Amino acid sequence: MRIGDLQTPALLVEAADLEHNLATMSAALPGERLRPHVKAHKCTELARRQADGGHVGFTCATIRECEGMAAAGLGTDVMLANEVLDARRLGALVARNDDVRVTLAVDSEPTIEAAVAGGVRDVVIDVNVGLPRCGCPPEDAGRLADLSRSKGLDVRGVMGYEGHVVGNDDRAFRESATADAMKLLVQAHGDVGGELISAGGTGTYDINTWATEIQAGSYALMDTAYGHLDLPFRQALSVLATVVSVSPGYAVADCGLKALGMDHGNPTILDATVFFCSDEHVTFIPDEGSPVRVGDRIRVLPAHVDPTVAYHERMHIVDVDDVVEAWPVDLRGW
Amino acid sequence: MRIGDLQTPALLVEAADLEHNLATMSAALPGERLRPHVKAHKCTELARRQADGGHVGFTCATIRECEGMAAAGLGTDVMLANEVLDARRLGALVARNDDVRVTLAVDSEPTIEAAVAGGVRDVVIDVNVGLPRCGCPPEDAGRLADLSRSKGLDVRGVMGYEGHVVGNDDRAFRESATADAMKLLVQAHGDVGGELISAGGTGTYDINTWATEIQAGSYALMDTAYGHLDLPFRQALSVLATVVSVSPGYAVADCGLKALGMDHGNPTILDATVFFCSDEHVTFIPDEGSPVRVGDRIRVLPAHVDPTVAYHERMHIVDVDDVVEAWPVDLRGW
Repeated sequence: MRIGDLQTPALLVEAADLEHNLATMSAALPGERLRPHVKAHKCTELARRQADGGHVGFTCATIRECEGMAAAGLGTDVMLANEVLDARRLGALVARNDDVRVTLAVDSEPTIEAAVAGGVRDVVIDVNVGLPRCGCPPEDAGRLADLSRSKGLDVRGVMGYEGHVVGNDDRAFRESATADAMKLLVQAHGDVGGELISAGGTGTYDINTWATEIQAGSYALMDTAYGHLDLPFRQALSVLATVVSVSPGYAVADCGLKALGMDHGNPTILDATVFFCSDEHVTFIPDEGSPVRVGDRIRVLPAHVDPTVAYHERMHIVDVDDVVEAWPVDLRGW
Repeated sequence: MRIGDLQTPALLVEAADLEHNLATMSAALPGERLRPHVKAHKCTELARRQADGGHVGFTCATIRECEGMAAAGLGTDVMLANEVLDARRLGALVARNDDVRVTLAVDSEPTIEAAVAGGVRDVVIDVNVGLPRCGCPPEDAGRLADLSRSKGLDVRGVMGYEGHVVGNDDRAFRESATADAMKLLVQAHGDVGGELISAGGTGTYDINTWATEIQAGSYALMDTAYGHLDLPFRQALSVLATVVSVSPGYAVADCGLKALGMDHGNPTILDATVFFCSDEHVTFIPDEGSPVRVGDRIRVLPAHVDPTVAYHERMHIVDVDDVVEAWPVDLRGW
């Protein structure tokens, strides 16, 4: 199949760029040094390529991602890097699969109780290292680890995501802020013990040397937000769209709010300025000398990969104009 | 089932509010005066309630919405209020179903050619009435209608969406701007002919008296953006979330960027201020005197209904704490 045969909008992944990104990251963080985060791509076929690259542990954000990874035979060491108050599906998952291991993040007594009640066996203490989101105070991590162990849970270590750092485009800031954040996490790890210090993201993958493993996810497909950083990863992801209407001064393509994560702002179109997006459309202003015609195909580059992919049923792996494969985005939902 | 039994995040629709919204709109715009837009809810079960209310014609934004409505037995008069360059699936749909009628928007020679090539029989001339998106110049509508008829298409009339007007919270502006926009559409209709002047939305449903039918969709479920207007429709839609972590000064619930359309900004949580959203989380600051605890269930009110619903597999129809029904969001994708 050729790209021209695809119905639009369609999620495209440039095979060479994906391969470059996976190889570059695996060279920098081989094997267990990387625990790829599947939330960015939600695709077990892509995860399989990461596993083929030597990364056997994965990070998940939802219960369904854990279930889907297990169903795909990629569940030997998945970490749900997120708190849940109903862990029964996770307990059932490990109970019925001898070769599935799920390590659940906990940051409070209720989340520890939920892990126990749900039948989860392995946990990691989620530590707040500066991002105002989940995670216990660093000084409380040891107590929560003791509590977990007293209830029969295996505490594998700590995690602490420097999410307030990863997207900053000043590398010097990322370096100093990661050091500050990881000082807290290492200190908590001293109280908690266990083999894991899990942290990091695409923006700090080569900066965060304190963590035993990095939870990066966006590097595989990339987006224009991470593209502003000085990273060696290429923009592999785009949304193929068709120009459906052209008026004096602007044009409209069929890639709108239901095909794009919008929290990081408008997407980017080469040789054009994006004006605004509506449910099924992007209105854009072609650059002088780059006119478009009705029926033209264009590539729309999302600002944020994760919520973009989550809208699509499949991603098409392409080699210039050829559609090589179609991979289901099979980890959507909750 | 009770709401407490639902996995979160979960899309909730308050049955009484939905019923109020449907009844209020049907009283204002009975029967063919309303052509409900299914893009806002993407749910054939909800569309069936609109049909039960007397509205037999529907507006769609995608080919899949047309196919899904036809499969649900609701395709006797669907309008695809959008341009497509490959209309073959629409042609096949009408060819294999005697009781299905699809009217396709066209605004240029290539879109007319696509309609003919795809086997579409009925079109409507899409006229630009001020929104910088699709639609031909009003003065070109007659020529495009003639061209369509010369190619054997049945031209049913005109459509022209005053999308630059519907969301403005100043009713006086909406009235004057709708009058300006519809003057253009009525003029184009004079050149085009046909029985349809299709326009309007939830924000102009009782203002736009020029159109023969109103394409409103958001009124059924509503969102906080339309909630700022002086409309008689209630916020029926929310996302049920669980508080998964509480820290001094803020709390975190499991409703993030993959459960919410974000183009209109952050969602709203009653008795709290939303701080920011991440992929699977909303971080919020509870009001003084309204503390939350880990495990609490909260309702998150989306800013924009359409791209929110498009993330969810189903909507749960609820009556206070009871889950009455679960309706598949079966019109997603393209």
